[in-house]
Amino acid sequence: MTPGEALAAECARYTAMGWMRGTSGNLSVVVDRDPLRLAVTVSGKDKGELAPDDVVLVDAEGNTDDPVRVPSAEAALHGRIAAVSGAGAVVHVHALAPVVAAEHWPGGVELRDLEMLKGFGRYAHDDVVVVPVVPNNQDMKVLGDAFEEGFRPDVPALLVARHGVYVWGDDLYQARHRLECLEWLLRFKVETSRR
Amino acid sequence: MTPGEALAAECARYTAMGWMRGTSGNLSVVVDRDPLRLAVTVSGKDKGELAPDDVVLVDAEGNTDDPVRVPSAEAALHGRIAAVSGAGAVVHVHALAPVVAAEHWPGGVELRDLEMLKGFGRYAHDDVVVVPVVPNNQDMKVLGDAFEEGFRPDVPALLVARHGVYVWGDDLYQARHRLECLEWLLRFKVETSRR
Amino acid sequence: MTPGEALAAECARYTAMGWMRGTSGNLSVVVDRDPLRLAVTVSGKDKGELAPDDVVLVDAEGNTDDPVRVPSAEAALHGRIAAVSGAGAVVHVHALAPVVAAEHWPGGVELRDLEMLKGFGRYAHDDVVVVPVVPNNQDMKVLGDAFEEGFRPDVPALLVARHGVYVWGDDLYQARHRLECLEWLLRFKVETSRR
Amino acid sequence: MTPGEALAAECARYTAMGWMRGTSGNLSVVVDRDPLRLAVTVSGKDKGELAPDDVVLVDAEGNTDDPVRVPSAEAALHGRIAAVSGAGAVVHVHALAPVVAAEHWPGGVELRDLEMLKGFGRYAHDDVVVVPVVPNNQDMKVLGDAFEEGFRPDVPALLVARHGVYVWGDDLYQARHRLECLEWLLRFKVETSRR
Repeated sequence: MTPGEALAAECARYTAMGWMRGTSGNLSVVVDRDPLRLAVTVSGKDKGELAPDDVVLVDAEGNTDDPVRVPSAEAALHGRIAAVSGAGAVVHVHALAPVVAAEHWPGGVELRDLEMLKGFGRYAHDDVVVVPVVPNNQDMKVLGDAFEEGFRPDVPALLVARHGVYVWGDDLYQARHRLECLEWLLRFKVETSRR
Repeated sequence: MTPGEALAAECARYTAMGWMRGTSGNLSVVVDRDPLRLAVTVSGKDKGELAPDDVVLVDAEGNTDDPVRVPSAEAALHGRIAAVSGAGAVVHVHALAPVVAAEHWPGGVELRDLEMLKGFGRYAHDDVVVVPVVPNNQDMKVLGDAFEEGFRPDVPALLVARHGVYVWGDDLYQARHRLECLEWLLRFKVETSRR
Repeated sequence: MTPGEALAAECARYTAMGWMRGTSGNLSVVVDRDPLRLAVTVSGKDKGELAPDDVVLVDAEGNTDDPVRVPSAEAALHGRIAAVSGAGAVVHVHALAPVVAAEHWPGGVELRDLEMLKGFGRYAHDDVVVVPVVPNNQDMKVLGDAFEEGFRPDVPALLVARHGVYVWGDDLYQARHRLECLEWLLRFKVETSRR
Repeated sequence: MTPGEALAAECARYTAMGWMRGTSGNLSVVVDRDPLRLAVTVSGKDKGELAPDDVVLVDAEGNTDDPVRVPSAEAALHGRIAAVSGAGAVVHVHALAPVVAAEHWPGGVELRDLEMLKGFGRYAHDDVVVVPVVPNNQDMKVLGDAFEEGFRPDVPALLVARHGVYVWGDDLYQARHRLECLEWLLRFKVETSRR
C-alpha cells in the first residue's frame, strides 16, 4: 500500500466513526527522516472520499513544493510532532469525547488504573497518565510550542481545547489503536464523572 | 450525476446517520436561477430508498406542474431559502441534537471559539455565531417569514423548534459539510452544558 | 417478496440499529383476515440472520399447526393487536429509549407539539398523544387485555414496561416509519427532560 | 466453519460495535474437554482484521506449545472460566456500559424484572440477578480466584472493574446473545439510574 492508499483507507474508517466531520481532520505518515518529509492528507476534501493521490509531501514546517495540492493547514503541527516525538504517523481527528474532556479538564485529563491504558502504551495500574490540553490557535508555531512544552515521550497524544485530538505512533496502525483506546478512555472518564 | 441521483445518494447517507427517520426530511438543489427552479425530493417515501426519479421540479413557491410526483410539503421553504440566501442546495433533516439545542436555547443557539465553526464557514476564534431558532409551523409562508426576519448571510442554517434543521450551501457537498459540522457543534454544546 | 423475505429483511435492518439484541423481538404480517392468520418470525434465532423460511403461520391466538417451527412466544399479542387495531403488520423490538421512557413515565408517555408526530400518524400541533405503558407479563392474555383496555385507534403503539415497544401499521413499511419516528420522539423526550 | 473462522467473524462483529477497540478483547472456544484445550484469539492484532489462523491452541492454564503465535494474556482466565462453568465459548470485550456499571456498583450489579434477562438465561420476573464485579488485576491467577469465589452457575458473566466484561455460553452463538442482552441491560441500568 502506498502512503496515499493507507491514508485514504484510515480516513474512510475514521469518517465512518464520525470522527472526521465535513472536511475536518488530517493524517500523516513520515516518508523520510533526514530531512524530515511527511505525506499528509490534502485540505478541503471530504475525508470519507479521499483518493490515493489526495496526499501531499511536506517538510518539517509543513511546506510543500507541490504545484497543485494544498496540504492541510495543520501540516506544520504534524511535522513538529513527528520531529519531537519520533513518531512515524500522526492522526488528528475531531472525535467528540476528547473535546468534551478537554473542556471539563482544561489543565490536562488525568487517567489511571484503567486496563485500556495498555492500548495507549501505558500500564493498567498505578500509572498516572495526564493527557495535556493546549488552547486552540490558528498559528501552528504557537500550537507547536505549546505541544513541545507539555511533551512527554510516554504520552502519545495532545488535546487541543475546543478543537480535537492528536495521537501518534510508529505507524498508522499503532496510532489508530492508541486513538481508539484514548477515545474510549475519555468517554469513560466523561461518563463516570457525570453521575 | 443527475440532480435526482445526487439527492438520492445524499438522502441514503443521512438516513444511515439516523437523520431522516421514517419519510422525514427533504433535500433540494437549484437547477435554474431565473426564474428559480429547484429539484426537491418527493414526499412520503423512505429517504434511504429513493430512486433517482423520486425528485420533482418546483418553482420558488414550491409549486410543481408535475402530473404525478408530489413534492415535499416543505418545498416552499426550500425555495424561500434558496431565493433569499442564494444557496445552490438546501438540506433539511431531523437530526436529534439540533432539536434538543433549539429546545434548550429557544432564542437562538450561540456558538463561539470552536474550531468546527470553520467547517460552517466562520472563524474559530472571537466570532460569535448565533444559529436562529424559529417556532414550528405548518404554513411555509409563516416559517419563511420567520426565516427571512432572522436571516444573516453569514449563518447558513435555521433551527425549527421541535422539528429539525435546515442547512444550505453552494452545492450538496458544501451543505453536507456544514450540516455535519453544525450537528457536531450542537452536540458539543448540549453535552458540555449538561454537566 | 414473500412475507418471510420481508420479515427477514426488516429484522436485519432493526438488528443493525441495535433494536433486536440476541434473539429478542419479533415481527409479523397479516396474511389472512377471516379467519385471522399471521406470518410471525420464529423464536430463538438471531434476528440479524433470519432466512426467508424462519417464519411460521399462526392464528389469532398465536397457535400454529406447523410441525417444526416454533412461533415467538409473543405471537398471541401480535394476533390480538392485529385483530383489535386492524393493522396489517406488527413490529416488536427492544430499542432502549422506549423502555427508558416507560420507566420514567409509567402512566403513559405524553408527546405533543413535535413535527415527528406526523410520522406517527398524528398532528404536529395541539394534538396530545399519550403512548400507553403496560406492566410486563409473560401471559399474553394479561398483556393483551391491558393492551385492549388502553387501546385507542389513533395511537399505533404500546410500551411494555421494562421490556420493549410494539408498533403497528397497514404494512411493514408503515410500521417501520412509525417505529423510527416514535423512537426518535422518545429519545427527544428523555434527553430534554434530563437537563 | 473452523474455530479460527468463527472467532475471526465474531471479532469483526464486536469490533464494528465498538467493543474491541485497538487490539483489545479476546474470544475463545473449547476444542477439547479432557484435557481442556481452547482455541483463543492471538494477542496484539486489530480484532476487526483477524485471519482464520490468528488463533492459538492453549491448555487450561493458557499455555501453548505453538512456536509462533502468542495467545492473549488473558487466555488463562478463559481456561479457568471454561473449566469452572463448563462453557464452550468465552467472550471478553471492552464495551463501555459494563465498565461504567462496574464503576457505579462495585459490589455487583443487580438486575431484576427486565424482559432482557431471558436473553441472559434468567427470568423476566422476581429473579434477582447480581452480576459480580471483581477488581482488575494483571495476574490471571488472582483474577481467576476472584472469579471462582463469586461464581454461580446461573450467572454467565463477570465484570472486571475498570477493564471489561466476560460472558460465556455453550457456544459463540449463545455467548454473543447473552453479551448483547447484558450490554443492553447495563445500559438501561446506567441510563435510568442517572435521572
